[in-house]
Amino acid sequence: MRRFRPALATTGIVAFAAVSAGLAHADEGMWQPSQLPALTSTLKARGLALDPNTLSNLTSYPMDAIVSLGFCTASFVSPDGLIVTNHHCGYGALQYNSTAQKNLINEGFLAHTQQEELPADPTQRVYVTEQISDVTARVNEAVKPGMDGYARYMAIDHAKKQLVQGCEQPGYRCDVYTFSGGFSYQLIKQREIKDVRLVYAPPLAIGKFGGDVDNWMWPRHTGDFSYLRAYVAKDGTSATFSKDNVPYHPKHILTLNPKGVEAGDFVMVAGYPGHTDRYRLADELQSSIDWYYPTLIAIFTDELAMIDAAGKANPDVAVKYAASVAGINNAMKNFQGNLDGLARSHALETKRAQEASLDQWLSHQSVGEGSKVNGPALETDVKRLRALVDDQVKQREHDLVYNLLGRGGMFHATYQIVRLADEKQKADIDREDGYQQRDEVRVLNAEQRLERQMDPALDQQLMVYVLQRYVKLPADQRMPSLDKWLAGANDRKTLQDRVAELYLDSKLTDTATRVKWLSATPDEIRASNDSWLKFMVAVMPDLLADEHRNKGIAGDFAALRPRYMAAMTAFYGAKGKPVYPDANSSLRVTFGTVEGYQPRDGVTYTPFTTAEGVAQKNTGTEPFNVPPAEMKAIHDKAYDGYASPKLGTLPVNFLSNLDITGGNSGSPTLDKDGHLVGLAFDGVWEGVSSGWLFDPDTTRTISVDVRYMLWVMHHLDHADNLLKEMDVEPAQQ
Amino acid sequence: MRRFRPALATTGIVAFAAVSAGLAHADEGMWQPSQLPALTSTLKARGLALDPNTLSNLTSYPMDAIVSLGFCTASFVSPDGLIVTNHHCGYGALQYNSTAQKNLINEGFLAHTQQEELPADPTQRVYVTEQISDVTARVNEAVKPGMDGYARYMAIDHAKKQLVQGCEQPGYRCDVYTFSGGFSYQLIKQREIKDVRLVYAPPLAIGKFGGDVDNWMWPRHTGDFSYLRAYVAKDGTSATFSKDNVPYHPKHILTLNPKGVEAGDFVMVAGYPGHTDRYRLADELQSSIDWYYPTLIAIFTDELAMIDAAGKANPDVAVKYAASVAGINNAMKNFQGNLDGLARSHALETKRAQEASLDQWLSHQSVGEGSKVNGPALETDVKRLRALVDDQVKQREHDLVYNLLGRGGMFHATYQIVRLADEKQKADIDREDGYQQRDEVRVLNAEQRLERQMDPALDQQLMVYVLQRYVKLPADQRMPSLDKWLAGANDRKTLQDRVAELYLDSKLTDTATRVKWLSATPDEIRASNDSWLKFMVAVMPDLLADEHRNKGIAGDFAALRPRYMAAMTAFYGAKGKPVYPDANSSLRVTFGTVEGYQPRDGVTYTPFTTAEGVAQKNTGTEPFNVPPAEMKAIHDKAYDGYASPKLGTLPVNFLSNLDITGGNSGSPTLDKDGHLVGLAFDGVWEGVSSGWLFDPDTTRTISVDVRYMLWVMHHLDHADNLLKEMDVEPAQQ
Repeated sequence: MRRFRPALATTGIVAFAAVSAGLAHADEGMWQPSQLPALTSTLKARGLALDPNTLSNLTSYPMDAIVSLGFCTASFVSPDGLIVTNHHCGYGALQYNSTAQKNLINEGFLAHTQQEELPADPTQRVYVTEQISDVTARVNEAVKPGMDGYARYMAIDHAKKQLVQGCEQPGYRCDVYTFSGGFSYQLIKQREIKDVRLVYAPPLAIGKFGGDVDNWMWPRHTGDFSYLRAYVAKDGTSATFSKDNVPYHPKHILTLNPKGVEAGDFVMVAGYPGHTDRYRLADELQSSIDWYYPTLIAIFTDELAMIDAAGKANPDVAVKYAASVAGINNAMKNFQGNLDGLARSHALETKRAQEASLDQWLSHQSVGEGSKVNGPALETDVKRLRALVDDQVKQREHDLVYNLLGRGGMFHATYQIVRLADEKQKADIDREDGYQQRDEVRVLNAEQRLERQMDPALDQQLMVYVLQRYVKLPADQRMPSLDKWLAGANDRKTLQDRVAELYLDSKLTDTATRVKWLSATPDEIRASNDSWLKFMVAVMPDLLADEHRNKGIAGDFAALRPRYMAAMTAFYGAKGKPVYPDANSSLRVTFGTVEGYQPRDGVTYTPFTTAEGVAQKNTGTEPFNVPPAEMKAIHDKAYDGYASPKLGTLPVNFLSNLDITGGNSGSPTLDKDGHLVGLAFDGVWEGVSSGWLFDPDTTRTISVDVRYMLWVMHHLDHADNLLKEMDVEPAQQ
Repeated sequence: MRRFRPALATTGIVAFAAVSAGLAHADEGMWQPSQLPALTSTLKARGLALDPNTLSNLTSYPMDAIVSLGFCTASFVSPDGLIVTNHHCGYGALQYNSTAQKNLINEGFLAHTQQEELPADPTQRVYVTEQISDVTARVNEAVKPGMDGYARYMAIDHAKKQLVQGCEQPGYRCDVYTFSGGFSYQLIKQREIKDVRLVYAPPLAIGKFGGDVDNWMWPRHTGDFSYLRAYVAKDGTSATFSKDNVPYHPKHILTLNPKGVEAGDFVMVAGYPGHTDRYRLADELQSSIDWYYPTLIAIFTDELAMIDAAGKANPDVAVKYAASVAGINNAMKNFQGNLDGLARSHALETKRAQEASLDQWLSHQSVGEGSKVNGPALETDVKRLRALVDDQVKQREHDLVYNLLGRGGMFHATYQIVRLADEKQKADIDREDGYQQRDEVRVLNAEQRLERQMDPALDQQLMVYVLQRYVKLPADQRMPSLDKWLAGANDRKTLQDRVAELYLDSKLTDTATRVKWLSATPDEIRASNDSWLKFMVAVMPDLLADEHRNKGIAGDFAALRPRYMAAMTAFYGAKGKPVYPDANSSLRVTFGTVEGYQPRDGVTYTPFTTAEGVAQKNTGTEPFNVPPAEMKAIHDKAYDGYASPKLGTLPVNFLSNLDITGGNSGSPTLDKDGHLVGLAFDGVWEGVSSGWLFDPDTTRTISVDVRYMLWVMHHLDHADNLLKEMDVEPAQQ
């Protein structure tokens, strides 16, 4: 694996022994718990004191104390179901309980007793992983030789649905997780806790200090933590909110280490990372660099300009699209960060070199002769995968336009109405994922939410913008039905007129009407004169044909991606290196060291930020409005024994070389004994592109330090009831 | 001296021993060479190997090898008068010799023989300080008791002119330098070398790498060095350019140490710092923070907008004002840097606390009782100084408007014509500074240069802008003559009309006409019907009255600033601390340590940047266009033995805690033996406000490393003839 890499590390080693000592330890890998025993010697060398076998046991300490919130990770920290997670993961519960009169988001919240705790949004869940079974053989036996891509896709989909049906029971949620595009499948059974309550959150000026300005950035000074509590029925079963519910008693809880960790110490994070692309082909990366990221950035820029103009003309529109704007800006920043990071780390060259090494190695693995690997067969399949990717690259503009069209507010709402009516005609197990009985409430919520998120006039503009792109597609990539509806319109003005009619003659912009149509039959829908319904009924066959085609491609990938993973596993296995699968929201462990990094020549980021840095950033206005009580405490150095003796002051956030991604938010950062020393809440800007390629020089995890958490709770917010519940004493008084 | 200072240094000490070790050494002070023997123990403690007494001897090594270019500092580095200085100090010579066909600025230049060397701009000078005499008594004896401010000013001015007249002789320039506002005066005699030639400069992409983007910034990667040569007549006397001139043979030269220095090593810089305000009162600092910097930033912003609009309409205008725009932008960046730095370092609080300590100390120094200090008398004078400053603060808007008016293109040109004619009527010694015989060529140059720097239409707009400010002054701060000319005009439109007439009826926008008028008598000028001349003749008496008033104030300050300095000297003297005077373009020495700093919590700037950082910054376009040959050499690590063994690579720029300011540019950075290890060329952004207050945590000097200089010369530009002339061998091959 040749990599062009400027000799920065060398410089660092001489000048900053404390930092560079760690650089050699940089450990890539989001490991499945079951893989950890195989890594025992490395884990011991890094400083783990626990037995690695303990970490692979999901029903013992510490793994069964670590839970999923669906979109975030969290941990049980008291026998009475107290849960700690990031402030931004508990944000929904704050939002749900805030009013204009009492803004808990800004003020923060503390329940002094369990009676004062507030129910979170009813959709809030806590998932406790209780069982993981390998079902690869069960899924694969559904796939028969000679199946084409679509048949393979449907066979796998059906097998997964059957496994889920056979597993789920009241109070439990089951899912089949696909690893490495189908290299293996695991059926994961999670206890689903439905009564989740808000216990404590610091004020926004601490919990989201630095806001979007500091997002992805170091140096960081965010107190990104909050507390929830899990409740169940008196008989211990899962139940939605009720006053009669009682705190859930987890089998194990995480112990806090109020002394925290210091530079160079072992740390690990266990959590639920969402998605990475580490095993994508170089051609896929190249398409992202050359086309996908720049194209999306350009489209987002145009969309933001339209939303901004509409919002300036009408403040209501600005409110409706605020979340969209935040999301688009976040994605743009992420895409730009990817482009910068991929260029800086020469990721494409590295990927190409990796593939060349793999190809060369495979070409030397002949069948027979005692070889365990069928080199020629793998070679053939890797080539087929490349050809499939090349086909996809040719279709990328088409795929993008169809996706953009599907993102439209009214387009998506109408699509769901028509599709749900059609799917309801089938047996539940045969329904499309997202339109099964278990999904109907989500569809309803989406139809209701639309009125707070869409402005029909702006929605039209955005649709016209996408159609301007659609009409430039080659004829064979277009939908006959949509072309018929367009009737040759291909300039902006004519498209505007066409789209305006769609909105003018439809009642579907009304929420009650949309909800009413959700219970309509396919026949009723097809008899309607509503312009949006008529439009959707007309284009649906072409949309389904495109879906069919996409499923066929997905089926082809499902055959070939596992073969690429098999090739990689054999290749690295021959070098004695275990291979971890891409992140897929299943439980993973990453381990490494507390350490800073060199973002560029001449600059070193130290592993810890301190309370004095919080005061330095204070401007008095959001997002850098340090609460006056905190300013005073920092000025007085009133750190109550939570200061680090090594730093001589109170640590706030710290860096480690751990390998995390979105979904890991809220994950406990654990020390060598498995004790909680912080919560992971972000990565650094230079590591944004680590989804594609882990760069050990610049991929860093940011955690909020347990000492800052405890100090804020004790000194500023007087949450001593929680400290007592967690059995925490300050390190020294 | 209480200072609020976050405990950053503490953090740094633990995490980064190599850096923090130096923090304790931060040494403020731009010392006069004669003060150095008194600092022997400190100098030895920091690591100086030379005898400090050597440094105070201006006619021995190394001090007499260090010369002034007027606006920069430089050093003799060969027995044949070879001079090394910054690239930006030798820029004029490159500019003077560049044509559209052969752009030496972009390409760089190397003379392989003395015959190939190119004459610099005829105004280019090299000044070798040969004698410094204290003339405080001689100046002070001209001041008689009972003189008012104006009389005192004139007496001092006359005494200084007489001293200069008595000193100057062909080939020498003399000046009386005022230290600490009149605490002492020194007559400095400098050999004036007038034939200066361009020998070598790297291409712009190395010499000004990073351009304005990186100006004042760290991390920095600029090869800011070039070489000139001093020539004299065959008999050794100073002479303007002639082919018959021969290289000047300096008595001493600086030796280069091609091994350079490493982090923590002793370094010192000798040079000609221009101006600091370290002994200004807190009230003066407050006026700068509250009013001067913000007001000027607002005015400059408006001016830039006018220039930008005019330049967009007419590209010729953009060319004419390019230098003005660069200057204004530079000043704005500086002012903003001052505001940021002063706020960050809590400079005003520190100043106020310093003054309070001084006041308290003075109040305890009673007369008699064996006290050497007349406390009550000093207390009174410090109070008088404060009152004088308060008066000035009240006049600040008036002073600003008059200054802005005087900056106008046509205003200044016409003023010079009228004033010179009037001054010529006096004996040379009585003429106003700037209008003596020695200055006439400068006035001529300025009148000629104007046509390349001024557009009459834009000049009008800028004058109207200032007049809009003038008409808002209170009546008693205005000029009767100007008010008469304005005839009540006070809105933009009327002012525009008034100013338009001035330009319409004047021939003075023509260069030949301006030059012709330079030789006119006062009577001829007063007989002219030219609108600009008539205007200037009318307002001149009021301008002179204002000048008279300002000289009176200057005379008052000349009495009181030395008293404040006397108080400070006594105050610090009582603590055993020597006090250095504010920078005033005279020769100074600053010493300290190679070290980085913490610009903010969580971030450390390492003391060295490296060649790899140059490659990292490469974008292919100016100012980050690394020459391809350099990119290749860095990629190949072809450092020819110039790499630092400690860094493991080639150093480019380095930081030290030395105390420099504008005018120090080009100064040699010397090691413990007085050998050249770099050239100082900039300070860091966080230290911009050090003109007011030296903050040891963030004031750093940036030097280009001697190893980078030699490597560029040897490996990229093949200037081996110069390496040979300087007797330099690579550290290792």
